[in-house]
Amino acid sequence: MSERSARSRATILKAARELVQERGYGAVSMDGIAARARVGKPTLYRWWPSKAALILAAALEEAGEVFVVPDTGDIRADLSTLVVRACEVLGDDDLRPLFAGVVGAAQSDPPTNAAVKEIHHALRGPNQERIIAAQLAGELPQGDPELLEDMLVGAMWYRTLITGGPIDRAFADTVVAKVLGEPTT
Amino acid sequence: MSERSARSRATILKAARELVQERGYGAVSMDGIAARARVGKPTLYRWWPSKAALILAAALEEAGEVFVVPDTGDIRADLSTLVVRACEVLGDDDLRPLFAGVVGAAQSDPPTNAAVKEIHHALRGPNQERIIAAQLAGELPQGDPELLEDMLVGAMWYRTLITGGPIDRAFADTVVAKVLGEPTT
Repeated sequence: MSERSARSRATILKAARELVQERGYGAVSMDGIAARARVGKPTLYRWWPSKAALILAAALEEAGEVFVVPDTGDIRADLSTLVVRACEVLGDDDLRPLFAGVVGAAQSDPPTNAAVKEIHHALRGPNQERIIAAQLAGELPQGDPELLEDMLVGAMWYRTLITGGPIDRAFADTVVAKVLGEPTT
Repeated sequence: MSERSARSRATILKAARELVQERGYGAVSMDGIAARARVGKPTLYRWWPSKAALILAAALEEAGEVFVVPDTGDIRADLSTLVVRACEVLGDDDLRPLFAGVVGAAQSDPPTNAAVKEIHHALRGPNQERIIAAQLAGELPQGDPELLEDMLVGAMWYRTLITGGPIDRAFADTVVAKVLGEPTT
């Protein structure tokens, strides 16, 4: 990507983020993003096939790294970091609408659904390998490793998408303590 | 409601359910529902302000009762029943799209969001009273009662809305066992 393209892309993603934060996901259009970014709509569609795809890119650029489990060698600490960081993002009034809007759009738009699932599966692969290895080493509770991961983040997404309940540090710590329990050895 | 109105309402809700099941939530419109039900669009808008509100009513009429915790006097059995029944609904290829579609729409449409939260809070009140009483009686693990409820159903909604992972009886039973653990007395 040329430097000019990169600048243009960054301007568009910033415009998309600002508009979602100001107006809510449902009230943002490709027209509105183009106007805010001072580019033509064809420029938007050159890079992203839909509003959902553009806002997904904006969300990931802003905070996508928090959904990657760090690797310090201590799986329990790393999973705790994952949940705490993800709760910081989904508990943030500016960032939550980006992710919630895209996940919402995924329920009625098949390409967005496929994009969300693709990201999910790319992130999950390495996590699952590490969780399984840690279970074998007795560092994590036994049982379905996929369920362990889903229980770490499920309540957080449930609050994000349905209940509106608090997503703060106390919540993150309690979920982690409940799901990880004590090591088995 | 007159008998004729009740019949008309039932026909419309059935048409909405069928269309979501056949085409997916995103491809269904108020026009399409009116045509399938052989009524005018004004009839739809007389009862429901939006497509999301209509499909929410259709979803609740079909399977809304599963989200109410039964009361047999045994809170552990009742919470298990809740999760098993909800997993039957969200694991069903015909029913899941109704609920997922409405929760998805709630992320970009404020009135739908308010309707989903209102239903959630109406269901949650009695559940929380029973959970708190059971915790005091030592029949459930101690700790934040709201978190206990959210962990029972959070992973199920996470799989419904994001991962597409299996939502079956084994999943329901494992979640319940993990969250409820052993009684504390």
